[in-house]
Amino acid sequence: MKVGVLLFENFETLDVFGPVELIGRLKDLYTITFYSLSGGLIKNIHGVSISTEQLATETNNLDIFIIPGGMGTRNEVDNVSLIDSIRRISLTSKYVLTVCTGSALLAKTGLLDNRKATSNKRAFEWVISNGKNVNWIKHARWTVDGKYYTSSGVSAGMDMTLGFLCDRHGLEFARKIAFEIEYNWIEQKENDNFCDQ
Amino acid sequence: MKVGVLLFENFETLDVFGPVELIGRLKDLYTITFYSLSGGLIKNIHGVSISTEQLATETNNLDIFIIPGGMGTRNEVDNVSLIDSIRRISLTSKYVLTVCTGSALLAKTGLLDNRKATSNKRAFEWVISNGKNVNWIKHARWTVDGKYYTSSGVSAGMDMTLGFLCDRHGLEFARKIAFEIEYNWIEQKENDNFCDQ
Repeated sequence: MKVGVLLFENFETLDVFGPVELIGRLKDLYTITFYSLSGGLIKNIHGVSISTEQLATETNNLDIFIIPGGMGTRNEVDNVSLIDSIRRISLTSKYVLTVCTGSALLAKTGLLDNRKATSNKRAFEWVISNGKNVNWIKHARWTVDGKYYTSSGVSAGMDMTLGFLCDRHGLEFARKIAFEIEYNWIEQKENDNFCDQ
Repeated sequence: MKVGVLLFENFETLDVFGPVELIGRLKDLYTITFYSLSGGLIKNIHGVSISTEQLATETNNLDIFIIPGGMGTRNEVDNVSLIDSIRRISLTSKYVLTVCTGSALLAKTGLLDNRKATSNKRAFEWVISNGKNVNWIKHARWTVDGKYYTSSGVSAGMDMTLGFLCDRHGLEFARKIAFEIEYNWIEQKENDNFCDQ
């Protein structure tokens, strides 16, 4: 199955590589490709510089499309080409997973309208402003609505990804992966320690 | 302060990017550079391809030197040039942090002899074979012995990094970073859920 991860300047490091660690180790099932609007090396403020393929018009029919967050989303919500690409690819992808403020980018396409979604607690008001018709849920480690999975801030992307793998492959399968990487998985998507603090 | 992260083919994704997420966001304090023996793009089996600087002989006096694990360590323990470089850089670094099977590479240099260290549970016997004079501790989320921090498997690198930041900057500082990325930090290095399963 084909997994596409969207990158843009100043993506958040763990938003990307938490899910990539979990899905990437299932190499008999999933193949991950990193994409960006222009291709080439994409950098962030943590000093990370990752090689990407160009998001061409034929990038379609992904099994999983992953959209991370990060400070870069503040610029990218106004990048019409990127938002158009996200809309196009999301429509033809079997599942779309957003991490942290990645849900603001997906919300901007309109595809989350009247659907449940969540995001980073510390950027929640800004995220909401990019999708006024979305059913935003603040108290959630992650949300699922049809083919759309959205997670809370940064680390929550790993719990959501395990939740996604649980939904596809079963609870014991997901627990085994968490165990392999010695990760204390938060198994319940309603189990959110960061909402009321 | 200068942070150097060692990369090699088939490093484990989260071993690298968990600590990088945590230290990278402290951009007023720390600057991260990724190094490899030959420089250039370094790939792993998760599809990640990251740009690195060459580990030149003048790479010295790092404040933090981070050594990840991964399947690539199985080859790299026999890479004399890499092990020599790890020894040289570790000797002049203020702190050395290993994640997962990264401790096998550091053990191979002899610098962990008669020191406490830990590693990935699922590769423990192999790791031990690379450092017979190390005081290996299996039940540990992470260990600290002088300037050497070693963590258990994959995800444990994040808890160790927060522990390291706690030791340098205080508990409230470390808790604030964990909170910012909505991470449920395991604060006690003896708190290891993965040893006896």
